[in-house]
Amino acid sequence: MNDVNLGLYFLSEFAGTTFLLLFGCGVVANVSLAKSKGLGGGTLMVNWGWGIAVFVGVMASAYSGAMINPAVSIGLLVQGTIDASMFFVALPAQLLGGIVGAILAWLAYRKHFDEEPDPAAKLGVFSTGPAIRSTGSNLVTEIIGTFALVFIILAFADYGDVNVGIPGGLGPLTALPVALLVVGIGASLGGPTGYAINPARDLGPRIAHAILPIKGKGSSDWSYAWVPVVGPMVGGVLAALAAPLALGLGA
Amino acid sequence: MNDVNLGLYFLSEFAGTTFLLLFGCGVVANVSLAKSKGLGGGTLMVNWGWGIAVFVGVMASAYSGAMINPAVSIGLLVQGTIDASMFFVALPAQLLGGIVGAILAWLAYRKHFDEEPDPAAKLGVFSTGPAIRSTGSNLVTEIIGTFALVFIILAFADYGDVNVGIPGGLGPLTALPVALLVVGIGASLGGPTGYAINPARDLGPRIAHAILPIKGKGSSDWSYAWVPVVGPMVGGVLAALAAPLALGLGA
Amino acid sequence: MNDVNLGLYFLSEFAGTTFLLLFGCGVVANVSLAKSKGLGGGTLMVNWGWGIAVFVGVMASAYSGAMINPAVSIGLLVQGTIDASMFFVALPAQLLGGIVGAILAWLAYRKHFDEEPDPAAKLGVFSTGPAIRSTGSNLVTEIIGTFALVFIILAFADYGDVNVGIPGGLGPLTALPVALLVVGIGASLGGPTGYAINPARDLGPRIAHAILPIKGKGSSDWSYAWVPVVGPMVGGVLAALAAPLALGLGA
Amino acid sequence: MNDVNLGLYFLSEFAGTTFLLLFGCGVVANVSLAKSKGLGGGTLMVNWGWGIAVFVGVMASAYSGAMINPAVSIGLLVQGTIDASMFFVALPAQLLGGIVGAILAWLAYRKHFDEEPDPAAKLGVFSTGPAIRSTGSNLVTEIIGTFALVFIILAFADYGDVNVGIPGGLGPLTALPVALLVVGIGASLGGPTGYAINPARDLGPRIAHAILPIKGKGSSDWSYAWVPVVGPMVGGVLAALAAPLALGLGA
Repeated sequence: MNDVNLGLYFLSEFAGTTFLLLFGCGVVANVSLAKSKGLGGGTLMVNWGWGIAVFVGVMASAYSGAMINPAVSIGLLVQGTIDASMFFVALPAQLLGGIVGAILAWLAYRKHFDEEPDPAAKLGVFSTGPAIRSTGSNLVTEIIGTFALVFIILAFADYGDVNVGIPGGLGPLTALPVALLVVGIGASLGGPTGYAINPARDLGPRIAHAILPIKGKGSSDWSYAWVPVVGPMVGGVLAALAAPLALGLGA
Repeated sequence: MNDVNLGLYFLSEFAGTTFLLLFGCGVVANVSLAKSKGLGGGTLMVNWGWGIAVFVGVMASAYSGAMINPAVSIGLLVQGTIDASMFFVALPAQLLGGIVGAILAWLAYRKHFDEEPDPAAKLGVFSTGPAIRSTGSNLVTEIIGTFALVFIILAFADYGDVNVGIPGGLGPLTALPVALLVVGIGASLGGPTGYAINPARDLGPRIAHAILPIKGKGSSDWSYAWVPVVGPMVGGVLAALAAPLALGLGA
Repeated sequence: MNDVNLGLYFLSEFAGTTFLLLFGCGVVANVSLAKSKGLGGGTLMVNWGWGIAVFVGVMASAYSGAMINPAVSIGLLVQGTIDASMFFVALPAQLLGGIVGAILAWLAYRKHFDEEPDPAAKLGVFSTGPAIRSTGSNLVTEIIGTFALVFIILAFADYGDVNVGIPGGLGPLTALPVALLVVGIGASLGGPTGYAINPARDLGPRIAHAILPIKGKGSSDWSYAWVPVVGPMVGGVLAALAAPLALGLGA
Repeated sequence: MNDVNLGLYFLSEFAGTTFLLLFGCGVVANVSLAKSKGLGGGTLMVNWGWGIAVFVGVMASAYSGAMINPAVSIGLLVQGTIDASMFFVALPAQLLGGIVGAILAWLAYRKHFDEEPDPAAKLGVFSTGPAIRSTGSNLVTEIIGTFALVFIILAFADYGDVNVGIPGGLGPLTALPVALLVVGIGASLGGPTGYAINPARDLGPRIAHAILPIKGKGSSDWSYAWVPVVGPMVGGVLAALAAPLALGLGA
């Protein structure tokens, strides 16, 4: 790990997370903002949009192994796959990418933000919020969703011939399993909290929502902001602890 | 087969079936429970959710060959791919995974179970039930669906270079064909009975439904419970008998 | 081609076409028959159902190269890939598979046929019919759709490393491109005639509709039956003539 | 590059773009024209239709590397992957393919054009138009969408083992990532302008709309026609300039 160029490492995580949020916030804007051609496109369309957002983000982030998610990074840190310097370079890159990607999505849909009367719909493009507000339950849902994400990504890595997002891996086709996994997490575990499962995905756009001059915007709902940060980090650590045991590694 | 670690074998089938049911029960909860963000997401979303549930389950279950279904196991037993000790270790692991996965899905959607007024919708998250109750027809539908599942899985195995879920196989991409197959069985053969096609998928969650303290729950419909157990087992055996002939193996 | 076992060749085309129609008729039954769980599932679900039906049919039909469609067979005959004896063995196998697959789909949905009041919906599970009846236009649409199908399949075969459905090919993953192609033909070219693009897919189930004791069934619409036979055969021949030129083979 | 047969190169780009527009215009016709079986099929169906249209177009265009889009071609020209003679042969081939593909889609749906009362729905089958007309914002959206398209295609090319659409590449499966990318751009960035992201995709069909004897057609909206030409070309150039830096090539 000594020969990692930390500047490129930062750039790579930044680029991947920027594309993740451009596509991710974009699909929510498409199905929910006034006069958009995709208005009312439905939940499955949102699930595919986020799944392909991860696919695209992984493609843009090969140098750093395409973590594009602090919950994945902390799992790899716990596992010893990355070291502390890589972790602490990745974190701000991911957060900055989250902000910039959300800003680009806002630029692409700017006129539709102007036409949309509901402030909650505007915030919903940027950040997640619970269907039923309940701190304990919301945390549990985010922990379960992120546990599944990181556990299965670590299961992928258990296959020597398919290094997902690791430099030297097979390329675009290896990003497909991660995309499918995220489509599935959205479809199966997204109902209660909107599946942040990634602190940078939620906090970065929330900061963008707070600083952008969005016409008629409302609160950025900071009281909920810690849940989709803490929940995913806990889920990522638990997955890194459980995966080696449950997957029978070294057997 | 003598060097199989039956403890890891149990753990592997348990982990795979747990993830299968977490994602599978999850997607039904998402489209059917009150106030869930995916409410009304539709049949195709449920089909994709279950397909990816299998994908995820296969990923978590590589050590044991990712059967995660007693109907697949009995087919492999009839074929001689696994022996009786493996079969009788897999069965309780799959059933236990079915129970635990359903419990995790209930935890993720707990507040939505509380808000949902219809007991039938609650049971529907856990177990299958027929659209038109008719023991003979329901059995036939489950036999046809499971026959297709196991027959095509055995056809996959006929390709030397793509071992689906067998240790030493190619990894995540080989789980994709099984996922597509299950999406297709849901879309094409799921209309009459909700496609159990897997005794552990139906019986495990039904037990979870019976023992969990679900607010306002109704009957666990035990009178129907044997159909999605017997039908799939018959379908799995028939497929194992028919596949070698129809696929022209050894020709 | 001299060492082909024509008995296995017949069996292989029969098995593949049987699965094709079981899944294909099944998805239409699911979205259109009374009380089915997938009722109203929509066009995209039907498109995916038929795409995966082809995927499954290809998997069950490896020995014979998985043509499972007389329009593909006549294209391969014109190209010289198969000889006349193979062609004339494949044709009745495909037609018989079309009949048997449709019968199995009817068995799986039998109670829903009983409950469905509209005879047109019942016939629609078996065979295609035009949205606007116009012999010339309907023929043109079927010719264009089948031309696209066979032309692109021949383009696949131009890649030495991915033999779709040819014995010795890579296996399950190579069936995915054909499935996607059929999803696309349904989504893009299925609007006017319901995309038969395969004489066995239309004529076989129409015969099944005529002979089965379906409760309350209406006409089998034999006056239209020749269109989805002649159109696809013309499209298949045209594609076989055009593909070598347009793909720059031998350049 | 000296041994490229420019005649085959033209034919290849023409064939690929023809299939792209046949499938692309076709799916819009299916979901929007009167009496079509796919009427009201929804945005996700359109996204998949266009994604598979690209998949099919890439399959038909292997000799020339399947650019089938002037914005991709100008990116490859800026990068030095193709030379000026190839660029200026590809451009008219792509435009002609755009015209011919749209004509074929019109032929397939001819009776439905006759029955459709709304001239805007007819034009919508051929060309894109903005949801909210605003030259500056519409340009920005097309630039962002095409930037994402070309940037990620260049990221694919960075993987030595997966040459997407380059002769000598792996074949059909390598077209899948591009198809997914286009599904994602449609879902995430298609809301404001209908995602032309390809001058030939928009201008070719617009010319077809202008010259075809479409019953009851209205304006071809030439005042907007330059936006989906200039926006994508700018996006393609920017991506070619940004990609080598952001992807850490040569590091």
